[in-house]
Amino acid sequence: MNIVENRYGKSKVRVARIVRHKDRHDFHEMTVSIALEGDFESSYRDGDNSLVLPTDTMKNTIYALADDPAVEQPESFGMLLARHFLGHLRHVSSVKIDICGHLWSRNDRFSFTAGPPHRRIAKIEASRDKVSVESGVSGYLMMKTTGSAFEGFLRDEYTTLPEASDRILATSLDALWSGDANWDDVMSVITDTFAGHASKSVQHTLYAIGEAVLERFENIERIRLTMPNKHYLPTKHADVFIPTDEPHGLIEAVLSR
Amino acid sequence: MNIVENRYGKSKVRVARIVRHKDRHDFHEMTVSIALEGDFESSYRDGDNSLVLPTDTMKNTIYALADDPAVEQPESFGMLLARHFLGHLRHVSSVKIDICGHLWSRNDRFSFTAGPPHRRIAKIEASRDKVSVESGVSGYLMMKTTGSAFEGFLRDEYTTLPEASDRILATSLDALWSGDANWDDVMSVITDTFAGHASKSVQHTLYAIGEAVLERFENIERIRLTMPNKHYLPTKHADVFIPTDEPHGLIEAVLSR
Amino acid sequence: MNIVENRYGKSKVRVARIVRHKDRHDFHEMTVSIALEGDFESSYRDGDNSLVLPTDTMKNTIYALADDPAVEQPESFGMLLARHFLGHLRHVSSVKIDICGHLWSRNDRFSFTAGPPHRRIAKIEASRDKVSVESGVSGYLMMKTTGSAFEGFLRDEYTTLPEASDRILATSLDALWSGDANWDDVMSVITDTFAGHASKSVQHTLYAIGEAVLERFENIERIRLTMPNKHYLPTKHADVFIPTDEPHGLIEAVLSR
Amino acid sequence: MNIVENRYGKSKVRVARIVRHKDRHDFHEMTVSIALEGDFESSYRDGDNSLVLPTDTMKNTIYALADDPAVEQPESFGMLLARHFLGHLRHVSSVKIDICGHLWSRNDRFSFTAGPPHRRIAKIEASRDKVSVESGVSGYLMMKTTGSAFEGFLRDEYTTLPEASDRILATSLDALWSGDANWDDVMSVITDTFAGHASKSVQHTLYAIGEAVLERFENIERIRLTMPNKHYLPTKHADVFIPTDEPHGLIEAVLSR
Repeated sequence: MNIVENRYGKSKVRVARIVRHKDRHDFHEMTVSIALEGDFESSYRDGDNSLVLPTDTMKNTIYALADDPAVEQPESFGMLLARHFLGHLRHVSSVKIDICGHLWSRNDRFSFTAGPPHRRIAKIEASRDKVSVESGVSGYLMMKTTGSAFEGFLRDEYTTLPEASDRILATSLDALWSGDANWDDVMSVITDTFAGHASKSVQHTLYAIGEAVLERFENIERIRLTMPNKHYLPTKHADVFIPTDEPHGLIEAVLSR
Repeated sequence: MNIVENRYGKSKVRVARIVRHKDRHDFHEMTVSIALEGDFESSYRDGDNSLVLPTDTMKNTIYALADDPAVEQPESFGMLLARHFLGHLRHVSSVKIDICGHLWSRNDRFSFTAGPPHRRIAKIEASRDKVSVESGVSGYLMMKTTGSAFEGFLRDEYTTLPEASDRILATSLDALWSGDANWDDVMSVITDTFAGHASKSVQHTLYAIGEAVLERFENIERIRLTMPNKHYLPTKHADVFIPTDEPHGLIEAVLSR
Repeated sequence: MNIVENRYGKSKVRVARIVRHKDRHDFHEMTVSIALEGDFESSYRDGDNSLVLPTDTMKNTIYALADDPAVEQPESFGMLLARHFLGHLRHVSSVKIDICGHLWSRNDRFSFTAGPPHRRIAKIEASRDKVSVESGVSGYLMMKTTGSAFEGFLRDEYTTLPEASDRILATSLDALWSGDANWDDVMSVITDTFAGHASKSVQHTLYAIGEAVLERFENIERIRLTMPNKHYLPTKHADVFIPTDEPHGLIEAVLSR
Repeated sequence: MNIVENRYGKSKVRVARIVRHKDRHDFHEMTVSIALEGDFESSYRDGDNSLVLPTDTMKNTIYALADDPAVEQPESFGMLLARHFLGHLRHVSSVKIDICGHLWSRNDRFSFTAGPPHRRIAKIEASRDKVSVESGVSGYLMMKTTGSAFEGFLRDEYTTLPEASDRILATSLDALWSGDANWDDVMSVITDTFAGHASKSVQHTLYAIGEAVLERFENIERIRLTMPNKHYLPTKHADVFIPTDEPHGLIEAVLSR
């Protein structure tokens, strides 16, 4: 029997770090997942654990390395973790790190309230000869009450949707881009493009967002955008709508220069 | 067999309303539950539905009344709904309305991003001779990195918790108060008191919050506060912590003048 | 300022226990919450923790007492916990214990697969002079494809629901009863009554279930039943339906002899 | 700007179907997602919707085709949907269908209770010249109280995990296989192998499960297995454990002949 691919690791490791400045504390909270690939076949075939670093140790390593200043950016913390495992374990060929940063809004020097519900994410994939770092956002909820239409679409025997010249547009955007750029700046471009675009469809707005990001940030080579269409169904009362979570449209594309 | 109590209604009705101003749109989104009590015993005993207004109709009524300007405040929208059912259905003795308002942050005149994850809530209970309106918040997540201790507590044979002179304090506060007060102002007092209090325990901070609200808002007679202790467990690295959701402490009290 | 009521404790404590028999292992897994009331006002007012047993200790106590054979029934384990705190802490006036038992289906002597998704629950409230024990179920999902109607209901200006002489009936039943009875036997009566009843409404079936339980189990004095109406909306294809979670009807009643 | 890849469709479409036999009703409930790829670039670039079939129509198509007897197996229903879109839309190059079947346990001829919480899944990917059908399970929760060890593993400076010669092993298995085989039979082999295997690690048991499935079902060429290690942490009481959801180990491999 052939082991076509295999990986193992620890998922959903939650960790928080206080960074103490003279006049304030910074607070970093995130959820981290680690997966290793390498020479692990004997653990599967023979139950030979001699090369298996426990996933519990990966968890401990996350806690230990969270002491490092690299923790302040998910990309640099992910790189620190990836380098650690590649450096210490010769039989590991590649490391995947997923980091999901929780957003806290500063209240005063030492206190915070929950920030918006979306997450800042970073994905690192590092092997002996190649490193990929992607940055992004998960669950970025945006909505506009006008400036969105959906007309002139293909109809078939099952089509009942009326044309809409002015509808609510809402999405919970996931994005992932490669290349160095200030995260908050990218988020602003996404937000402003969504808000300002004369949308003819979710596809149309997705493209506009990708185009704006690629135009504005020359280091970004490529961006993946996933945009569910979070429907607000019309009622017979013109300004009253029914928000629904399921079903939802789902539009996804990868754009590059 | 005796029917000691009974109620029926519709839960989790989601509704959104655009309020169109010349220069901007306001957007109100909420989840509403309705429960009726009254002369419904024959529906239970005999399957006689002649006095049973369908819960589907309650849903339609929510959509219809969401057209009213009262929708702009959960308390007034809840009152509108309660009065509707008491006014139209003689055999109904009391109506309970629960409203859970989603928070959107304005981006520009016509667009919004998801606000903080907590919810603004209102609870209305209205009978023929009495109305109770409560306002509040659900899931208000606050955290501070210092200014919180837990020391000098009772120990028994199972106690292993070390004393903590300086710990992270985090909670996801639920509050419910009766009496007219600006919701944002109450939230500010809650936030500032949490942040500024030299906390000796969650109980101690809960009391401080309640006291501050009752002192500042003379119309508020009474406040219920529920504060889970969202633990950030220490690691052997001084500034690194493990956030946990379960188990959690849970402190609850009702304070009045 | 007056502290009208207060309680504190630990929630969502998960615990599992293996009971080793010669020929098989039994496995008990549950989630436990504890809340204490008593002479705790000084902890709120003054931050005086001298009478405050840490909630962390309550958690440890749950683990320690889970070693006791009482763990095999949620009611007896809850009583053990309640008596422990009343017995050891003179300043505690009452204890609330909530136990939510996870169901595992036995596969062989030592292995199990996840049972049905509902939970077996027990609620204990014990003070110096009174004990209340309630047993029940949470989230018991039942569905029938025929034998359910909803006709002859009250109509008003907002009613659009058509009469239904034969519809799908589905609910996720919560029940809570006081009095000693075999849990599996009560569940069977609930299931069979739901299945066999010629239902004219959810209210009608709720009553039939309560009546059947009270008739069959003479020790049960009283039962609370909460039955959401989990709608399967018709489509224009006669046998095709749209399952929905929100909104849902919600019917609740307490029945006693 | 280049559109490297794109797809769009409808997700989380819930649908149920009654199949009426003389002596009983069968009931099929599932959640379906559809994604189309093809000649859609103008919708992104220009907002030209002339080739865009609304995702609302995809939803309606699911309801309409659920009338077909193919609905009785997720694989055949998925194929029916995929063929429909490829057949009706010339500009579509490939269709992805994901089906997640809910499990109901039969109670009597016309009534059901919620089955175990895992889901039966099928994934279809069809293009003009190739069709891939995969079958599987999501979230299959299994646990054993003995017959599992984890010893002799690699240790480093961060390793604190003690060796375990006899521990609880629990997982929530995801599997996906290609090739025609009776779903219940595959599930039995998975269950029995998990239960009977003298496990030296999750990896070891994962391999044993894959091997047993490939040996027993000659039509299955390949199987992907994902097995989180759902930890039951030991306490100082030998038979008492703390169930935890996060963090968890995660082991994944693809096995083929």
